[in-house]
Amino acid sequence: MNRRKVVVIGGGTGTFVALTGLRKYPLDLSVVVSTMDSGGSTGRLRDQLGVLPPGDLRQALVALSESSELWRELFTYRFEFGDLGGHSFGNIFLSALEKTTGSSRRALKEASKILNIQGSVVPVTFSNSSLCAEYSDGSIVEGEDKIDKSYTKRPRIRRLFLKPKAKLNPKVVKAISSADFIVLGPGDLYTSIIPNLLISNITDVIAESAAKKIYIVNLMTKLGQTDGFTVSDHIMEIDKYLKSGFLDYVLVNNKAPSRKILEWYKKKDNVDLVKDDLYEKNAVEAKVIRANVLSKNVFKRKSNDSTKRSLIRHDPDKLAKVLVKIIDRKA
Amino acid sequence: MNRRKVVVIGGGTGTFVALTGLRKYPLDLSVVVSTMDSGGSTGRLRDQLGVLPPGDLRQALVALSESSELWRELFTYRFEFGDLGGHSFGNIFLSALEKTTGSSRRALKEASKILNIQGSVVPVTFSNSSLCAEYSDGSIVEGEDKIDKSYTKRPRIRRLFLKPKAKLNPKVVKAISSADFIVLGPGDLYTSIIPNLLISNITDVIAESAAKKIYIVNLMTKLGQTDGFTVSDHIMEIDKYLKSGFLDYVLVNNKAPSRKILEWYKKKDNVDLVKDDLYEKNAVEAKVIRANVLSKNVFKRKSNDSTKRSLIRHDPDKLAKVLVKIIDRKA
Repeated sequence: MNRRKVVVIGGGTGTFVALTGLRKYPLDLSVVVSTMDSGGSTGRLRDQLGVLPPGDLRQALVALSESSELWRELFTYRFEFGDLGGHSFGNIFLSALEKTTGSSRRALKEASKILNIQGSVVPVTFSNSSLCAEYSDGSIVEGEDKIDKSYTKRPRIRRLFLKPKAKLNPKVVKAISSADFIVLGPGDLYTSIIPNLLISNITDVIAESAAKKIYIVNLMTKLGQTDGFTVSDHIMEIDKYLKSGFLDYVLVNNKAPSRKILEWYKKKDNVDLVKDDLYEKNAVEAKVIRANVLSKNVFKRKSNDSTKRSLIRHDPDKLAKVLVKIIDRKA
Repeated sequence: MNRRKVVVIGGGTGTFVALTGLRKYPLDLSVVVSTMDSGGSTGRLRDQLGVLPPGDLRQALVALSESSELWRELFTYRFEFGDLGGHSFGNIFLSALEKTTGSSRRALKEASKILNIQGSVVPVTFSNSSLCAEYSDGSIVEGEDKIDKSYTKRPRIRRLFLKPKAKLNPKVVKAISSADFIVLGPGDLYTSIIPNLLISNITDVIAESAAKKIYIVNLMTKLGQTDGFTVSDHIMEIDKYLKSGFLDYVLVNNKAPSRKILEWYKKKDNVDLVKDDLYEKNAVEAKVIRANVLSKNVFKRKSNDSTKRSLIRHDPDKLAKVLVKIIDRKA
């Protein structure tokens, strides 16, 4: 039997988690990765060296790597002090590869070889574009990092767009056209998932593909982006940017984190659990699958890590198990 | 026939040149590398991250690498701008490996594997010591970079010493004890070659070894270190620090660089050709070998390279050919 072709669309830690779990199954895996990141180590390398933002690519590469634990650790290692402070070694590695080979395509190819990856990592675009958000009050913010980092609640994002327009990487077309399943998320809705859907004609390519679309709903809201968002809010936003064709499956976690962690989270980051309101609403076309996909591990934040990362996370193995069940049922 | 065991002692570009040539011959090569470097990218990584100074190790690794051209280029690549500006990727790589593995020994072992090196790279010590120079006027300068970087002529160095004392890496003992030949130089006399001879009992180990000692005399003087030094001055300094036992062979270049380059050099860096005065003096015990070992290439200096590197250099192939002739004659 041929391996099922699965394309994960995203970027960031959520995608890392999904890939880490899925990698263990005999699937033909591709990951389409956002290249709009402009914050932290990635943003500095992009601005200072003119390289393709390496952060999301790095995470996807490590997730799919079958090389030694050392390489995986090395790629993930973040320098703590001095000139290199805050930079991830993997980011530096990808940047040096791009500078040495003279091409971000070649750099990615070489890194994929070195890390012995299972599957393929495909940047959604090689264009240098900025992510922009127009809020419901009419204000506009430019730059992924500025949209991502918010210390207060903000009005809802009315429209997300790129400036200038970005050209779709032809490899994305190839991957999506032949896919059996497309997995969206988990990950920051406006800064990791939807940016991919803004690239030229990608939504047409998705609509024309026979692939079933699975969306993994986030566990927590995000300050300044999805404050107060319920499960149906998330789904409606994805459907809106997909433009043509709705989601086929929606995967919702049904295991609540401990009250203690939730309270800490709320106090510290001003975020909350994404409430499952699908029982009350009939607006969703997709088949809803509820399962315990919550990780038991509580993740510690590192002091030198400037970006805010979730402490409440999906469990890679639980998540993959449910996804593979959906995939196999359709096989 | 067993391969001849050759130990090159040094560090820096001169050692890189010697190894690059010798690597092409069927020899059992080791290189003992100084770890006193405290300048530039290496010095910053040493100070900021507490790693073993990577610069000289990196150069030796690349010289002995049999891996793809890409890896060699990558390791040599120096970032030009931003946070990473001036840092060599190889230095960053070795630092990240040391941080990830938790040990400079393990880092070197892994890097040797990754770069598929022919032979072995042996740091002279893992101790964290500073190189100090006492000049003939009684003044003392501490720090390899401060001794190395001089913008004026200085009095002669009366005594070079380490602070605190450094412990000899046991692998150095093993390499030297079983060596057939020890090659010293080319390289900065006081900042690349002699620092190795200051480590605890290394000179006893050299004296007890049956290995023949070959010294490759530098082509040019160095401002603030070897101003006005002749060939015999170089040899006497080496013999002085070797303490017991004299050099067996001395290799002196006999091909003059073009007058134009020499004048440019003198004007720009205030340095001169090392004059061969061995015809006039009878003080040298060693067998003197004169040959054309001058490179025809004129090396350009890179704008982001803070250290002064020679533009007039030994030719790797010519140098190795003469060395191998000496080695084979004794085989």
